[in-house]
Amino acid sequence: MSACNISFIGAGNVAEALSLRFITAGHRVLSVASRGGSSAAALAASTGAEWRRDMSVADDCDILILAVTDTSVSEVASAITVPDHTIIVHTAGSVPLSALQRTSRAGVLYPLQTFTKGFIPDISKVPFFVEATDETTLEVLKSLGNQLGSGAYECDSERRRYLHVAAVFTNNFSNFMMTAGETIASGAGFDSEIMRPLIEETARKALRAGPSAAQTGPAVRHDSGTIKSHLELLSFSPEYQKLYRLISGMITRFYKKSGR
Amino acid sequence: MSACNISFIGAGNVAEALSLRFITAGHRVLSVASRGGSSAAALAASTGAEWRRDMSVADDCDILILAVTDTSVSEVASAITVPDHTIIVHTAGSVPLSALQRTSRAGVLYPLQTFTKGFIPDISKVPFFVEATDETTLEVLKSLGNQLGSGAYECDSERRRYLHVAAVFTNNFSNFMMTAGETIASGAGFDSEIMRPLIEETARKALRAGPSAAQTGPAVRHDSGTIKSHLELLSFSPEYQKLYRLISGMITRFYKKSGR
Repeated sequence: MSACNISFIGAGNVAEALSLRFITAGHRVLSVASRGGSSAAALAASTGAEWRRDMSVADDCDILILAVTDTSVSEVASAITVPDHTIIVHTAGSVPLSALQRTSRAGVLYPLQTFTKGFIPDISKVPFFVEATDETTLEVLKSLGNQLGSGAYECDSERRRYLHVAAVFTNNFSNFMMTAGETIASGAGFDSEIMRPLIEETARKALRAGPSAAQTGPAVRHDSGTIKSHLELLSFSPEYQKLYRLISGMITRFYKKSGR
Repeated sequence: MSACNISFIGAGNVAEALSLRFITAGHRVLSVASRGGSSAAALAASTGAEWRRDMSVADDCDILILAVTDTSVSEVASAITVPDHTIIVHTAGSVPLSALQRTSRAGVLYPLQTFTKGFIPDISKVPFFVEATDETTLEVLKSLGNQLGSGAYECDSERRRYLHVAAVFTNNFSNFMMTAGETIASGAGFDSEIMRPLIEETARKALRAGPSAAQTGPAVRHDSGTIKSHLELLSFSPEYQKLYRLISGMITRFYKKSGR
């Protein structure tokens, strides 16, 4: 696709990762604005863009991306001043397209990935889920998603919500299980770093054959003796016990149903 | 250390991975036996070892490794016939040293890793946790652990149990969260493989800064609107709702305590 002039509102992790990727793909970042202020100044400087202190964009802006937290999309959409020809896009998984309050030239470009300060993911491996108010805008967003990431998939607001909750399990919750593992190990006097090779292998197996084929442990092999002994050991935390019991039960039932 | 003659009882994933690593480290696998039979024949063939149909070992066996499931260690230990000079070792995380029923020349060599059929992990990256009935045996196991893996750490039976339950969280439970993510995504009509780049990035971040620093999501940023919307979406499964509520609460409290 031809080069676009892109502006950002929001200068957090998503804006940072996307803006850098837009530049390497040959687009131009016109301006960056944020309510916080200083993070926008820094991102504007690193992308060669103008730092805007208000919610406006230049007349030649093709696409304005609202890369703000899910809870702010709607409020920011009400506050912006944008030419009619400019496409307005948000990047949030759980927010409907309607939050942009526009009946044309509005869309969603949702990158299915986790973004944290200091960890810029490889956007070229990220699948983008797109939705738009009209066919022309949809085609623009599809082209962008295909160009920036591993692909662009049409997905309406309702299905995108499922994707977002799925991502919470895949990333947020699995990550917290690893934190729990390290907390238990360090509580018993071990350096928490000793768990790292296990984290690496967990991902390697899940990536190779899918997580459901990679499942191991006492719950999947119905080892009730070990489960009981673990629950005793976790008596220092009723919360860990509850979590252990719930997940073990779910694992057992999942593999009973699927016949393993 | 000088080359050892090693025999195995058990021919599963742990026996397979360890025996191949012993050979590349210059040791000799004398024999393999298992109650199942045919898996031992295959592993004996692939390691150039003798396939034994009973629970005995040759007179020149230095170390006999019981690489059997946690629940079988004690029973197998009662059934074996072994020369006095042979060291007997088990590899189970949750089983005490005392299960070997020996007051000398017995020990534990616990690899903190997940082993699944068809996925041989890189043993050279695995930390080994060792324990023994006597100082001489302990030294042998420490040397072996250091030689085979990333290091050998002394660890008594009680602390090893904590390590084992920590590993259940880090591997088994985090893996099941990824399975849940794929289940939710495919339930909404997506190809479950679209979650894989997120799995990769989850591990990359956890390995770089540790999982507790890598946490993201609605629970850590106190986004109660998104949490509520996710819980509504999960109404198709009371079990997923319960899990979502429990883990989100734990994440919120964990980061409140640690001040993020």
